[in-house]
Amino acid sequence: MKQVVTFGEIMMRLSPPLNYRFAQAATLEVNYGGGDANVAAALAGLGVPAAHVTCFPANELGQAAASQFRRFGVNMDHCVFQGQRLGLYFLEVGASLRASKVVYDRADSAFANLDPESFDWAEILKDAQWLHWTGITPAISAAAARATADAIRVARQLGLTVSADVNYRRNLWQYGPRAQDVMPALVAGCDVVVCSENDAADLFGIQAAAGAENSFASMAAQLMARFPQIRRVISTRRKTQSASHERIKGLLYDGTYVETPYYDITPVVDRIGGGDAFLSGFIYGSLHYATTREALNFAVVASALKHTIPGDVNLITAAEVEHIMLGNTTGRLVR
Amino acid sequence: MKQVVTFGEIMMRLSPPLNYRFAQAATLEVNYGGGDANVAAALAGLGVPAAHVTCFPANELGQAAASQFRRFGVNMDHCVFQGQRLGLYFLEVGASLRASKVVYDRADSAFANLDPESFDWAEILKDAQWLHWTGITPAISAAAARATADAIRVARQLGLTVSADVNYRRNLWQYGPRAQDVMPALVAGCDVVVCSENDAADLFGIQAAAGAENSFASMAAQLMARFPQIRRVISTRRKTQSASHERIKGLLYDGTYVETPYYDITPVVDRIGGGDAFLSGFIYGSLHYATTREALNFAVVASALKHTIPGDVNLITAAEVEHIMLGNTTGRLVR
Amino acid sequence: MKQVVTFGEIMMRLSPPLNYRFAQAATLEVNYGGGDANVAAALAGLGVPAAHVTCFPANELGQAAASQFRRFGVNMDHCVFQGQRLGLYFLEVGASLRASKVVYDRADSAFANLDPESFDWAEILKDAQWLHWTGITPAISAAAARATADAIRVARQLGLTVSADVNYRRNLWQYGPRAQDVMPALVAGCDVVVCSENDAADLFGIQAAAGAENSFASMAAQLMARFPQIRRVISTRRKTQSASHERIKGLLYDGTYVETPYYDITPVVDRIGGGDAFLSGFIYGSLHYATTREALNFAVVASALKHTIPGDVNLITAAEVEHIMLGNTTGRLVR
Amino acid sequence: MKQVVTFGEIMMRLSPPLNYRFAQAATLEVNYGGGDANVAAALAGLGVPAAHVTCFPANELGQAAASQFRRFGVNMDHCVFQGQRLGLYFLEVGASLRASKVVYDRADSAFANLDPESFDWAEILKDAQWLHWTGITPAISAAAARATADAIRVARQLGLTVSADVNYRRNLWQYGPRAQDVMPALVAGCDVVVCSENDAADLFGIQAAAGAENSFASMAAQLMARFPQIRRVISTRRKTQSASHERIKGLLYDGTYVETPYYDITPVVDRIGGGDAFLSGFIYGSLHYATTREALNFAVVASALKHTIPGDVNLITAAEVEHIMLGNTTGRLVR
Amino acid sequence: MKQVVTFGEIMMRLSPPLNYRFAQAATLEVNYGGGDANVAAALAGLGVPAAHVTCFPANELGQAAASQFRRFGVNMDHCVFQGQRLGLYFLEVGASLRASKVVYDRADSAFANLDPESFDWAEILKDAQWLHWTGITPAISAAAARATADAIRVARQLGLTVSADVNYRRNLWQYGPRAQDVMPALVAGCDVVVCSENDAADLFGIQAAAGAENSFASMAAQLMARFPQIRRVISTRRKTQSASHERIKGLLYDGTYVETPYYDITPVVDRIGGGDAFLSGFIYGSLHYATTREALNFAVVASALKHTIPGDVNLITAAEVEHIMLGNTTGRLVR
Amino acid sequence: MKQVVTFGEIMMRLSPPLNYRFAQAATLEVNYGGGDANVAAALAGLGVPAAHVTCFPANELGQAAASQFRRFGVNMDHCVFQGQRLGLYFLEVGASLRASKVVYDRADSAFANLDPESFDWAEILKDAQWLHWTGITPAISAAAARATADAIRVARQLGLTVSADVNYRRNLWQYGPRAQDVMPALVAGCDVVVCSENDAADLFGIQAAAGAENSFASMAAQLMARFPQIRRVISTRRKTQSASHERIKGLLYDGTYVETPYYDITPVVDRIGGGDAFLSGFIYGSLHYATTREALNFAVVASALKHTIPGDVNLITAAEVEHIMLGNTTGRLVR
Repeated sequence: MKQVVTFGEIMMRLSPPLNYRFAQAATLEVNYGGGDANVAAALAGLGVPAAHVTCFPANELGQAAASQFRRFGVNMDHCVFQGQRLGLYFLEVGASLRASKVVYDRADSAFANLDPESFDWAEILKDAQWLHWTGITPAISAAAARATADAIRVARQLGLTVSADVNYRRNLWQYGPRAQDVMPALVAGCDVVVCSENDAADLFGIQAAAGAENSFASMAAQLMARFPQIRRVISTRRKTQSASHERIKGLLYDGTYVETPYYDITPVVDRIGGGDAFLSGFIYGSLHYATTREALNFAVVASALKHTIPGDVNLITAAEVEHIMLGNTTGRLVR
Repeated sequence: MKQVVTFGEIMMRLSPPLNYRFAQAATLEVNYGGGDANVAAALAGLGVPAAHVTCFPANELGQAAASQFRRFGVNMDHCVFQGQRLGLYFLEVGASLRASKVVYDRADSAFANLDPESFDWAEILKDAQWLHWTGITPAISAAAARATADAIRVARQLGLTVSADVNYRRNLWQYGPRAQDVMPALVAGCDVVVCSENDAADLFGIQAAAGAENSFASMAAQLMARFPQIRRVISTRRKTQSASHERIKGLLYDGTYVETPYYDITPVVDRIGGGDAFLSGFIYGSLHYATTREALNFAVVASALKHTIPGDVNLITAAEVEHIMLGNTTGRLVR
Repeated sequence: MKQVVTFGEIMMRLSPPLNYRFAQAATLEVNYGGGDANVAAALAGLGVPAAHVTCFPANELGQAAASQFRRFGVNMDHCVFQGQRLGLYFLEVGASLRASKVVYDRADSAFANLDPESFDWAEILKDAQWLHWTGITPAISAAAARATADAIRVARQLGLTVSADVNYRRNLWQYGPRAQDVMPALVAGCDVVVCSENDAADLFGIQAAAGAENSFASMAAQLMARFPQIRRVISTRRKTQSASHERIKGLLYDGTYVETPYYDITPVVDRIGGGDAFLSGFIYGSLHYATTREALNFAVVASALKHTIPGDVNLITAAEVEHIMLGNTTGRLVR
Repeated sequence: MKQVVTFGEIMMRLSPPLNYRFAQAATLEVNYGGGDANVAAALAGLGVPAAHVTCFPANELGQAAASQFRRFGVNMDHCVFQGQRLGLYFLEVGASLRASKVVYDRADSAFANLDPESFDWAEILKDAQWLHWTGITPAISAAAARATADAIRVARQLGLTVSADVNYRRNLWQYGPRAQDVMPALVAGCDVVVCSENDAADLFGIQAAAGAENSFASMAAQLMARFPQIRRVISTRRKTQSASHERIKGLLYDGTYVETPYYDITPVVDRIGGGDAFLSGFIYGSLHYATTREALNFAVVASALKHTIPGDVNLITAAEVEHIMLGNTTGRLVR
Repeated sequence: MKQVVTFGEIMMRLSPPLNYRFAQAATLEVNYGGGDANVAAALAGLGVPAAHVTCFPANELGQAAASQFRRFGVNMDHCVFQGQRLGLYFLEVGASLRASKVVYDRADSAFANLDPESFDWAEILKDAQWLHWTGITPAISAAAARATADAIRVARQLGLTVSADVNYRRNLWQYGPRAQDVMPALVAGCDVVVCSENDAADLFGIQAAAGAENSFASMAAQLMARFPQIRRVISTRRKTQSASHERIKGLLYDGTYVETPYYDITPVVDRIGGGDAFLSGFIYGSLHYATTREALNFAVVASALKHTIPGDVNLITAAEVEHIMLGNTTGRLVR
Repeated sequence: MKQVVTFGEIMMRLSPPLNYRFAQAATLEVNYGGGDANVAAALAGLGVPAAHVTCFPANELGQAAASQFRRFGVNMDHCVFQGQRLGLYFLEVGASLRASKVVYDRADSAFANLDPESFDWAEILKDAQWLHWTGITPAISAAAARATADAIRVARQLGLTVSADVNYRRNLWQYGPRAQDVMPALVAGCDVVVCSENDAADLFGIQAAAGAENSFASMAAQLMARFPQIRRVISTRRKTQSASHERIKGLLYDGTYVETPYYDITPVVDRIGGGDAFLSGFIYGSLHYATTREALNFAVVASALKHTIPGDVNLITAAEVEHIMLGNTTGRLVR
């Protein structure tokens, strides 16, 4: 099978153990993750060849981050090591009615300062079938946005499928242009897009029709009309009960609207990367199943499982997902 | 803002990690706490200047306990270091239908043997606006009861607000007089009192009228009639589902009866100090809000948050409480 | 009181901390357990003299396993130390809809290669009142099956009560004969049997009548007709909600059908050994209560408590069980 | 082989991990030990049947302490559970030129308040060959001193060997009589005594002749003259380089003076219990070797090994000691 | 006693446990430290009132850092909270011939971006007797250098003693001017200076005379001639054996040359902050002893002790230092 | 650069933390290693492309082991996943005069049962320049010996350099033929051999001439005469002081005798894999330096560094080794 290639920043995540607050922490647990790298790692675990492309700082922390993704089976051969610092984020894990909290310390990272000329996309993508990126990446710096655009352009030339998680975070866009100026050209090159009604409104000014499910289909239809390359729009819907209790379902529109049942997750072990798990599940499902319904169901179960696994990355097998897709949601001991 | 001053014993708490039983523990987690010191620490975290007064043993453990409360921002300058041992308690954390368990080892502590002459209350309270104590303190020893009485007397002379959590524990009163003999004179000097119907009956022989909420108002009205200095009686009501699942609301009577909605807490991370969090929340609320309803709501949300935080002390900010007071109880990730 | 004697393999259990997956584990937590040894350990904790008989490898790991059960108060004087390796199993703890997973590494263990002549059952059982075994043991090897048969024969001769948990696991039976060939003769020597409808059908070809509770009574009546020594058949029924949430009740048939209410367990801390806790609770109850209803209720509450305790062994006191039997299921703090 | 019986207090030891200071500790490591119980545990590990007699508090901590010594294989059947608190000590582990530090919290323990009538020494010692006690025990309370005297008297009547480690700690003797008043009558009943020149001077007013090794022989000869029951006096001599580096040799006088070479220990992992390891090694050696030289060498190597093992108890095998006695001190990997 | 005030950046230090390499770390241990803040913390522990002045970021990490220094007893009331990020450094602890390694991530920290106008030095220093700073601070940014100059100027006006550790690190000076341009004016305002021959040569072009000890005196005499305010020049000399074994002595020149014996430290537990411990020890010694020899000896023993204590801060008492000054370097257990 | 390929078993190593004994361990630390895989991992870290070939069991533990070596940057694409169990070993870490101890549990592993036909050596080695194996591998089973012989034969055909660490362990050879029967034909195909005088005597009957260094040259000359393909014989010589203190130098004979100085390592952090580090260092050195003296010096410094790094694998950079080769052995802090 040909590779799926992802592009974006990998950060070190530092979190107090259990439910300790930042001020109580005598140790911090180390994980490494990034919205797109998590997709590559999950796919590698599912048996899909995956490569991630990024810029690490040329120091021990960059090496440590890279080695962690190699551990997940991701091809890191196209990564660049230059620059000064690894982006960081500090995560405090909430419980019940106390929210989890993230403190970012990613400004001026090696990735933000990457040189777009470092990446020979024709070479990187030559054995690939799929390129994935997220809306975080072009938000980081002009250089990162430029590299994203380069990757998409080459991917289109080579006939790859391109997917994006638009993932709009207003306060990330600090370097000058607005997301609304940058994102449309990038999304225009995509076949598959993760996009909620809110993001569609904020980024593209698309107003969904009123009403719960119809609103998604309405938005997606408009998005596809605006960007004709898009063939599928997907998203999750959450009924969050508390920091410890999540309910999640998957939505898809490809001309037809499809949704999954809700899956109940209590307790939530680690919610970081739940969206990335959904998207990586959808890529896997698209490559292995005949119907979008199956692919979507695989995606949402994969995402639900992610909520039970510590760290940013969804360490699961396809057999585990498929077992739950058959209705085995009671977590009975497997010997 | 002028200081809130609290007085009482600080103990070292030793607990097996996670849900291990005492006999399984190869390590014990260390926390320090006390019903009144926890109030000072929570207030300091909320930005209210707070000082705690106690007697520590003159050894490394006393120093360690003091430094921990300095960490919380509490002024410990009036603490005395004399005597032999730090009071201890061992806590085993239950789950589901298995109760948490406390084994006390506090007899003959430095605090129990304190010299009431060590504390120059006029000096200690000169810059204060509020004095808080709990019913645990006069239960420990005649000396502790004497010091409590001294503090209340001086506080009244200086015009401070005085609050008490009556917190009656029958088996603590071992040194001679009964709680019923000692507590009335102390409570008589208080403006704000935390008292449940059971404690009112046991300590003061006050029988509430029948009926759920009315019973509290009935009790509180009688209590205020008996002790005319009291202006507000508050309490929490709990619908405990299990060791891991709590529901809590706040009650107040100041002539008018007020209550909050129930807040649901599952899982409970650490229930120790939930009552102290309620009272410290109420002090903060009294100092910052126009209405008792707001103060009470702040108090009960603060208490609910405490159940999600490891240790005896409620490490929260006012912004976190106020966010939940607006109805944001689903613990959505804060970036 | 005379001893309860159990016989079977003790394995080392190795599990990643918290909810980590195998591939994430930098450390593994060590426990030791076995379906029958767990019964002895729980009984010793409840104050019933208990001895366990097994074959450990003659190395440091065998010694470590033995010392752990001595810690629980179990008499290990009749254990044999010979052979090469300690059986192992690796346990990954699931959460919510993700199942826990066991990887066995027990083939060719010292216990599987035991010499049945090593055990002088007349000597071992001379001060005993009860012998307990599980269906795991005769599944391991011909030698283990032979030793089980020897123990039962001598126990009958000496007038002991004999109990068995039939616990049929098809994939364990690898050494030649089928369970269906071996188990009937062993079960024939038992007074008390833990057996579900499924196991009765698989092992003995007994088809229960249709219908929820009647099906158990129907099966048990047939089992008692087939094996006249059996006086009581017991089992648990589970309504598993997820890997983190269990509901459990107890069933008994001794001519009359008895069942307990369901007990709710959320969160589940450690479900391994829940069945062993049920059986040990039933032995304790049989020795201390006048009615089977009380014994059964003790058993199911003991099993529910086990789900809240880390490790294979049910570390509880009778007072803790009896407190819950009185309806105190809310886990209120015990000071 | 007949039992060795030891008598004395078992304390919980609480120590910060690694080289952390008390004020830095977020967790404390739990061990249980006592100068005489450590001897029983080491002997059990060496294959010598050993029982320990003590009084534990009737709570979970007493049970935990007892179970820990059962784990070591010590017979705890004669222990009494009554009273309120378990004696504690806090240990901070030094390094290099920073000394380790102990903070005791053992006053008013269950053991100090024991009832001497609880112990039926004729029954306890009926299958024993040896009784061992230390000078700590009669220092704790009059009751403890009385029980020690009872045990020695009965042991003499039954013809046991009696040993003592005089271990004089001036600041422990708080309950009234001086060590100099109490110890002579107890030591008079002993066959084997661990005693340094300093202790002999302080306790018995015996002044050794000047000069390094002769001073020990001189003291021992006087001691044996004063207490004719004593047949052997032993001790260790230390050339302490730092908290992390120890040099140790063994001395013996039984009419003839014997000494071992120095053994070098760097790093020292845990020095607590080094003296107890020496004495237990000497008991083992006395029971297994023809010459006092061999017994003494076994003792000092056992003590050296103890310095490399975490906790109070010397967890070693005789084969390990004998391997080093042959000159294998380089710690070459054993496969 | 009047306060000692220190000024400079506090960083979060993140280190893999034990001797793990960065790439192996699943957790990082958290400490907070800074060359000048460490001096304040050590002095507070020694009983000297101490305040530290810095600029923290206005987030949870800044709060956590501040609370940690409050724990040490340092007055943090003059700290400012503004800006984005807390400076970090990652520390990998070596052993034997493998060096420890530091990776800095401190660029663009809140401290580097401080506003010099935030600090009202007349107010801050009004109750102080001593101001201390290090050469790290003016290296960070023009703003930090400006604030340092302000502090020194006001301290001189108020008649305080001013001390500096010149601590030249070439690669820190990135913002424009060279150290050689900035430092002389700052050092000119100091009474006590820590300076090695190398730093004197690099910073001030002072060439010491040849020869071991004389070289220091020669350099110091020239330094004092150049900067007449300087009354004492001190330094340590190290004979480093390995990452695990250090030898250290103290040197002083105040017209007369004084040195201490070498102190041997093996193993080294944590060498970070050894120089800060020396300087804080010298401040303590200067305030408490009659002679510079005693002050210097206190300083070097304090520094030696620091090498045995985890973290950046020297958590010691004066009694501990003085015990070793009397020659007790063997680390004998203190009960 | 072309790949170095290694072949052999990878085991899971389980060790109690710090210096705990097996019976004390509540957790075990997990590492993965193998004598030849460690060579591949070290080379990958040094920047030499490296692939390892082995047979893992087809379960989660095999996957975990593989992912760990991917983390080190080793190409694991040629590994086979079939069979039942992963070989294990338990390691207890000694200190001072207490030896470390290994308990093997590797019998009947997936590797022992490998199918030699699974490995297409012509394909595996087609891009390689070097093949390395150890004497452990042919000791495990006839299948493993057969696969080793296949690999060597193909490597010779393709013109690769072949190296072996003969590493004779008598008690490993259990499956029939003796090492003396199997090893000569395998060693005959090698260019570089690690062999001590003892191993040469035991395996090949070669008696070295008397005398310290000459003995090695004498043996090596005979070995090269016997196996003409061998061009270089290397080895280490150890002066082991204790389990915590090692001295090591390197020896080489290629017609000329070369040796390095001794390097002192105290404390030893982890001695497992020290020999593998030597050999991988020698491969690196052979590929990068002009002289065997430099290659040998690189090798022995690399080995010395390994003793300071936890785990089986030598996680170092060439710059770190070269820094020490220049004489910087004092471990001075690197900023």
